[in-house]
Amino acid sequence: MATLLTNIRLLAGTHAPSRALRGQELAILPAIDDAYLIIEGGRIGAFGRMSELSYKAPDFSQTIDLGGRVVLPSWCDSHTHLVFAGSREAEFVDKIRGLSYAEIAARGGGILASARMLNETSEDELYRQSLARLEELIRLGTGAIEIKSGYGLTVEGEIKMLRVIRRVKQSAGIPVKATFLGAHAIPPDFAGNRAGYIELITQTMLPQIAAEGLADYIDVFCEQGFFTPDETERICAAGAAVGLRPKIHANQLHVSGGVQAGVRAGALSVDHLESMDAEATKTLAGSATIGTLLPTAAFFLRMPYQPARELIEAGCAIALASDFNPGSSPSGNMNFVVSLACIQMRMLPEEAINAATINGAFAMGVQDEVGSIAVGKKANLVVTKQIPSLAYLPYSFGSGLIERVAVNGELGEP
Amino acid sequence: MATLLTNIRLLAGTHAPSRALRGQELAILPAIDDAYLIIEGGRIGAFGRMSELSYKAPDFSQTIDLGGRVVLPSWCDSHTHLVFAGSREAEFVDKIRGLSYAEIAARGGGILASARMLNETSEDELYRQSLARLEELIRLGTGAIEIKSGYGLTVEGEIKMLRVIRRVKQSAGIPVKATFLGAHAIPPDFAGNRAGYIELITQTMLPQIAAEGLADYIDVFCEQGFFTPDETERICAAGAAVGLRPKIHANQLHVSGGVQAGVRAGALSVDHLESMDAEATKTLAGSATIGTLLPTAAFFLRMPYQPARELIEAGCAIALASDFNPGSSPSGNMNFVVSLACIQMRMLPEEAINAATINGAFAMGVQDEVGSIAVGKKANLVVTKQIPSLAYLPYSFGSGLIERVAVNGELGEP
Repeated sequence: MATLLTNIRLLAGTHAPSRALRGQELAILPAIDDAYLIIEGGRIGAFGRMSELSYKAPDFSQTIDLGGRVVLPSWCDSHTHLVFAGSREAEFVDKIRGLSYAEIAARGGGILASARMLNETSEDELYRQSLARLEELIRLGTGAIEIKSGYGLTVEGEIKMLRVIRRVKQSAGIPVKATFLGAHAIPPDFAGNRAGYIELITQTMLPQIAAEGLADYIDVFCEQGFFTPDETERICAAGAAVGLRPKIHANQLHVSGGVQAGVRAGALSVDHLESMDAEATKTLAGSATIGTLLPTAAFFLRMPYQPARELIEAGCAIALASDFNPGSSPSGNMNFVVSLACIQMRMLPEEAINAATINGAFAMGVQDEVGSIAVGKKANLVVTKQIPSLAYLPYSFGSGLIERVAVNGELGEP
Repeated sequence: MATLLTNIRLLAGTHAPSRALRGQELAILPAIDDAYLIIEGGRIGAFGRMSELSYKAPDFSQTIDLGGRVVLPSWCDSHTHLVFAGSREAEFVDKIRGLSYAEIAARGGGILASARMLNETSEDELYRQSLARLEELIRLGTGAIEIKSGYGLTVEGEIKMLRVIRRVKQSAGIPVKATFLGAHAIPPDFAGNRAGYIELITQTMLPQIAAEGLADYIDVFCEQGFFTPDETERICAAGAAVGLRPKIHANQLHVSGGVQAGVRAGALSVDHLESMDAEATKTLAGSATIGTLLPTAAFFLRMPYQPARELIEAGCAIALASDFNPGSSPSGNMNFVVSLACIQMRMLPEEAINAATINGAFAMGVQDEVGSIAVGKKANLVVTKQIPSLAYLPYSFGSGLIERVAVNGELGEP
């Protein structure tokens, strides 16, 4: 039997575009005032205006009056490092005290600190911590998520992370995509031997990951001091050979050539984009690749935000994601990502919501399952508290305005 | 009978300074590891290390095992505009679209929009909305608050706001201080007659407010286009004559001379301070006046943050407050204020917590009642979720880490 949701003041995101929204399209968030929505078998069965509701309550196993609340598709967080061992707030304090990245690295901080902690933590413990984190994010409205490896930097560590992601995927209840990010940093053992680590990635890690079917995507941190554009393309090609499409870290700290490398490699997305120039923007706009902006990373690192307006105006397709990780974005709260995008990057509320839902879904290949209100998609929904308008959601940045969420049509308690 | 809280992993803020902390003192947040705390008659009766606990459970009506949680004094939010009618998210969207402040004002936005809505709203409705807002803030850990008038800008409107604040004060359960901010803007009726409005404030509003005992403090928005330093001092002098000490809006949009005017007028605090120069900093450091920083206002308006480090290093006493108001800081979430202070203004976690508790208490004259863990003070407390360290609180900026709060010793549900 089905569930009927009635008296939805605004049902937003009622579309099913065939490709990621770009340029001016991003500001168009179709919505129905005073709506109903029917959930059947965990999926969206029908929706429309209350005045046109021809079904009757006895047709349903459950009828829930949403009393004037707003319903949105749940957030699609297409870039996270959710699986990690241990927080890094001591490093946060070191940064406040003015230590440079190099000094923190010299004290054993940064990605390598997470790698050390990860390799010391059992798969079961990692799974337990990661699932608890994901459960909090689901309560905050996340309805699909991508999770990367990249804190292993050893064959065992990377495989362990990807197995944890697989276990999370099996129990999460929401769509989870796994990305292999062996190329997150050069581990200390390979300090003088970059080629050796890249060979380990392409010749040892990738075949094993492919054999176990552990990853959906491949990622490379294309950045000065990490991996060059050439190395990025080489690693992406090796991934493509075993069926993994790239989603890469590009142009975070420098104009790195990462956007161009990603586009050449046919990346589904190029992510970060704090440091863009006209050439990178033009390349992205002329491609099918999605630019994924991670404003909380810029916020936490006190960096300039991504140039969202310029990218939208150039015609790029952009998504918003949380970059949840213990070093540079210790939060996976997508409501705050949406607020930050509006307040600091001057995205319109409709643009930010589209970027954090349907475009996020495209940026991890789950657009047929989630990301918008469309018949047949999973009923992964966000129900807000009583709010006067959609713009109130990003405007009221300090309030938890998500009252309850639905996952596979199961509406949680308020 | 008394309540015993046991197994507090960290009891922070165990001090009772005789004046606001300044300079290097701000980084010192005394704390007890593995502590107990006794609540008697709604107040802190005793506290210490668990190993030194000589009381026994039967001595208490209630014993609550806090199982390794962190306990802090609740937030003291010394600058808010909590009483207002209607949100202003449409104006927020106009600003995203690039409209200037002048264009928004021409469309009827800004403070005057709030004044119009306020004057159209009944006292009962204002009270209802304001109390609901305060109840949310109390759940977020606010344990004392200052509230300003200033959206009336008419005799009736200002008196109405102050009466609402008095009703909130009577029912809130936490210390509430009322500040008269008739000098928030020049209302349209006095556009060509500034002197006339100032006379209305000093000759009509103030005597009535004093007669009814409606205010604890007086405030002036000292800023280009609002009130000059001379006018500020004149209005403050009229307030002082009826016993109201100034707490003023200074140096928000420009180096306005507001800090100097406030210090000359013996202000308890000068608030905002986004736009400081060496002279203003030196004047503040050499005075007993507290500088209250409002980082969420800078965040929401995309302005440079207050120069917290420079002010601390110059030896100023600084507090943190939310500036909760519908135009420039539509949030009263003090946890986020503390995070923002650490992430964006490079305050140490201990500095931010002191600035948001004991120094906030001094900035509204409630330091004998709240703001720290000291015998005899109200047991207005924050209990966090399980966190690995104090620094985790600002670091994990997107999580709601306050699990429960105590008001007058009554510990709420987790």
